[in-house]
Amino acid sequence: MATVKHKILVLSGKGGVGKSTFSAQLAFALAARDFQVGLLDIDICGPSIPKMLGLEGQEIHQSNLGWSPVYVESNLGVMSIGFMLPHPDEAVIWRGPRKNGLIKQFLKDVYWGELDFLIVDAPPGTSDEHISIVQCLDPNNVDGAIIVTTPQQVSLIDVKKEVNFCKKVGVKVLGVVENMSGLSQPISNLKFMKITDNGEMKDVTEWISEYMREKAPEMLNLIACSEVFDSSGGGASKMCKEMEVPFLGKVPLDPQLCKAAEEGRSCFADKNCVVSAPALQKIIDKLMETSGLSMTVSNGV
Amino acid sequence: MATVKHKILVLSGKGGVGKSTFSAQLAFALAARDFQVGLLDIDICGPSIPKMLGLEGQEIHQSNLGWSPVYVESNLGVMSIGFMLPHPDEAVIWRGPRKNGLIKQFLKDVYWGELDFLIVDAPPGTSDEHISIVQCLDPNNVDGAIIVTTPQQVSLIDVKKEVNFCKKVGVKVLGVVENMSGLSQPISNLKFMKITDNGEMKDVTEWISEYMREKAPEMLNLIACSEVFDSSGGGASKMCKEMEVPFLGKVPLDPQLCKAAEEGRSCFADKNCVVSAPALQKIIDKLMETSGLSMTVSNGV
Repeated sequence: MATVKHKILVLSGKGGVGKSTFSAQLAFALAARDFQVGLLDIDICGPSIPKMLGLEGQEIHQSNLGWSPVYVESNLGVMSIGFMLPHPDEAVIWRGPRKNGLIKQFLKDVYWGELDFLIVDAPPGTSDEHISIVQCLDPNNVDGAIIVTTPQQVSLIDVKKEVNFCKKVGVKVLGVVENMSGLSQPISNLKFMKITDNGEMKDVTEWISEYMREKAPEMLNLIACSEVFDSSGGGASKMCKEMEVPFLGKVPLDPQLCKAAEEGRSCFADKNCVVSAPALQKIIDKLMETSGLSMTVSNGV
Repeated sequence: MATVKHKILVLSGKGGVGKSTFSAQLAFALAARDFQVGLLDIDICGPSIPKMLGLEGQEIHQSNLGWSPVYVESNLGVMSIGFMLPHPDEAVIWRGPRKNGLIKQFLKDVYWGELDFLIVDAPPGTSDEHISIVQCLDPNNVDGAIIVTTPQQVSLIDVKKEVNFCKKVGVKVLGVVENMSGLSQPISNLKFMKITDNGEMKDVTEWISEYMREKAPEMLNLIACSEVFDSSGGGASKMCKEMEVPFLGKVPLDPQLCKAAEEGRSCFADKNCVVSAPALQKIIDKLMETSGLSMTVSNGV
């Protein structure tokens, strides 16, 4: 780990907030800036990183230097238990100590080489994996943690726990990202349903688009927006003020970003991710500036 | 546990798929049918159940019979580590053995009384909490597990692991619920934006609702739907066929259900949950029928 300049943890209180998607896109973004990047997935029971980097079915290789990460590109190496399972559907039914053993191996026995950034994608919570990674890396040698959340209170409650975890173990919070922050899309992408008299849903999309064209043409070019998760409590930005940690920004819920993640692609190279890619880019720029990361890293090229 | 007729686990592979929301609404639904219901939250690091049942800030009491659950109504008792934390923001930084100890206590030391149903809401994954709850309850005494997922592949990969976990430990899979299966909501709940000539987004919601009332009144009662998570892989129903487990149905992503969960209310008593409540009701009916649960329970009243 002495050959790694910057170590960043990506955490979340609750699961399913898009933490792995963020980790994957952060890795893609840093690699696109020609940094040497490592991405370590320490979610032992539900590793999503191989799929999100387009590396499903790949295996790790052993050399005399140790285990070799799987490379997306020459400057983006990935390590995950997902590469070690004989069958992808198999459950990893491990108690804590065994998980801790593997995390130690990921740090000690993997030959990462010279890295500008090691991004660690952790499972949700504050338990074995989190205690182990912080102990193994030594909090003093970690640049800090990025915490990902969704806007609603039930997720923010758990984020506060995560911020307090960081404070307790001495890891700096680099900032909080609010993900899935509202859904926006052209009205022409929507489907329309009608509830019939017997309570069934009937698809009337075709009829309605005809009806709109005829009766209400001004509606055709509108963007329909909806708040998916209730943010009436003020969302992550208010929570950040209260907890005195930096707020990095919002990423809208974008079906195109979900699709890019499913297919293991970078959203920055995808012209369909019109709402999410600029938002993520802005967040990564802000992260690099405010945490001073951009200053201290000598560009790899 | 001898006084509990039916024990149901609610599991998910990935977090954030709405597992706790489902558990909470299942508990509300069964209680509304006058069953005696217990809801046990074994997510130690991120307990969401107190908030989702409207019980934040409540505490458990000790009696000579043991710990008393917190009651929403006389026939719906709830137990969670959330009731035991001195401060709700505090992180529970526990390794496995300590989590296992508390789960044992929840089963042994809580005075549940006579229950028709005990619903156990587990954290995501297949680790300490899951091994412990199955060992403590004894797989032969568990009716089975309901597995909650979202439609996209990255979630389904983890669900397969969860199904295999159930097979390995001998717990029957009662069925799989596909949650967040597209976003559906009344058109009147949407906000409409127009892209102006200089590329700005302008909120035209008020003007559009007036315009619809005047020109296209038939649109006012429609439900607008959009796919949020990519289900092009066939979603949960296809996965269920492959894995030979029952598919219970789909619940659309409904901001009103999210809101009800945030506010700790039953969606069945909420006239705004027009799209999610009937879908959930249908799933619960199907569950009761196919698993034979409705036959064997003597209705509490």
